[in-house]
Amino acid sequence: MKRIELQKDILSHNNSIGSENGDTFARKGIFVLNLMSSPGAGKTTLLERTIELLKGRYQLGVIEGDIATAFDAERIGAHGVPVTQINTGGACHLDSSMIRKVLADFDLDRLDMLIIENVGNLVCPAEFFLGEDAKAVILSVTEGEDKPLKYPLIFRLATALIINKIDLLPHIECSVPRIIRDATGINPSLAVFQTSCTGRQGLDAWKAWLEGEMHKKKKSRPNT
Amino acid sequence: MKRIELQKDILSHNNSIGSENGDTFARKGIFVLNLMSSPGAGKTTLLERTIELLKGRYQLGVIEGDIATAFDAERIGAHGVPVTQINTGGACHLDSSMIRKVLADFDLDRLDMLIIENVGNLVCPAEFFLGEDAKAVILSVTEGEDKPLKYPLIFRLATALIINKIDLLPHIECSVPRIIRDATGINPSLAVFQTSCTGRQGLDAWKAWLEGEMHKKKKSRPNT
Repeated sequence: MKRIELQKDILSHNNSIGSENGDTFARKGIFVLNLMSSPGAGKTTLLERTIELLKGRYQLGVIEGDIATAFDAERIGAHGVPVTQINTGGACHLDSSMIRKVLADFDLDRLDMLIIENVGNLVCPAEFFLGEDAKAVILSVTEGEDKPLKYPLIFRLATALIINKIDLLPHIECSVPRIIRDATGINPSLAVFQTSCTGRQGLDAWKAWLEGEMHKKKKSRPNT
Repeated sequence: MKRIELQKDILSHNNSIGSENGDTFARKGIFVLNLMSSPGAGKTTLLERTIELLKGRYQLGVIEGDIATAFDAERIGAHGVPVTQINTGGACHLDSSMIRKVLADFDLDRLDMLIIENVGNLVCPAEFFLGEDAKAVILSVTEGEDKPLKYPLIFRLATALIINKIDLLPHIECSVPRIIRDATGINPSLAVFQTSCTGRQGLDAWKAWLEGEMHKKKKSRPNT
């Protein structure tokens, strides 16, 4: 019971700093996306494709969360957008304090969208609010159709589900209809996309959704 | 700092119950494997293939760890081996108390090997000793070659690495030599296997390794 209380304290502390981050993003009119998935589902590659589609029209920023290495920040940096790498040094998720610490790395007055790539983990990151407007979860078809029911929390809290690596469907057994049925059973308002980031399939709908969310955020910006 | 101290307390409490579990397994001469990976890397399918190869010659038991559902226990149960499902209800890893609680479900005097399939997570399960003789980590090639350096702890603590889904190599970009180089760089004594559990490739070497470990454990059994 002591452990449960402590867990509550940690989450409540994280939520309050997350709300402060959220206030900052609201004042600046920045749409913030928390991108989550298992290791290797394709977060960084989706991010690269997203940057290619939106760069030039919008000011993007990226925060890369990893336990170790700066591989992902190097990949994103090569696309010419501002990026900061957070190494958690072992921790299995990003928390709101880590985000607050790196916000000074960005010119927030210029940003339209900030994408936070969380640590590869289908469990823990879902519990830690960072101040984001939306959580997106990527599930690659190679992970199997049973994952929404086995890892329900992240699908319940997500606003968008990207079913990725659909180019591999001819080579594996995986029912995309079952993924969609189970995930929307858990969360009926989930926006679902089917993509291949190597084959560049399904990315237009994803881009249109992101643009819609960005515009909503700009419109709701408080007068300061 | 308070949080770090508490984390130490939790791990130390877990380790002491893990050691008690380990003493029980030693007395009974049971080889215990803690099988870990990201969600969808192929833990349950490897387990099914392993059971097919060893059943009849050895007495096997399986503990299935999942956040929710009994899908995996049902799959394993269909192969006619004793299996118990643990649902963590949200927790991102199994701990040694959860294992202790279900040991009474097995006839420990008869078992040769107990395989514990951990929650799908490449991060947290590595930190929690359950009383096992060996940790095995599965990395599927679809997850990408950069994972050993990005998630080093689990590769450092593992005794065996199973590089799985090699049947998909013709359809993706992934360097198996780089996985092996990086993983054995972190852990030079790692036993490495390359398998396809759907294509039934590479399983003989894995089976031989398991049999070797089982025999070592039987020989080291204390006289009671």
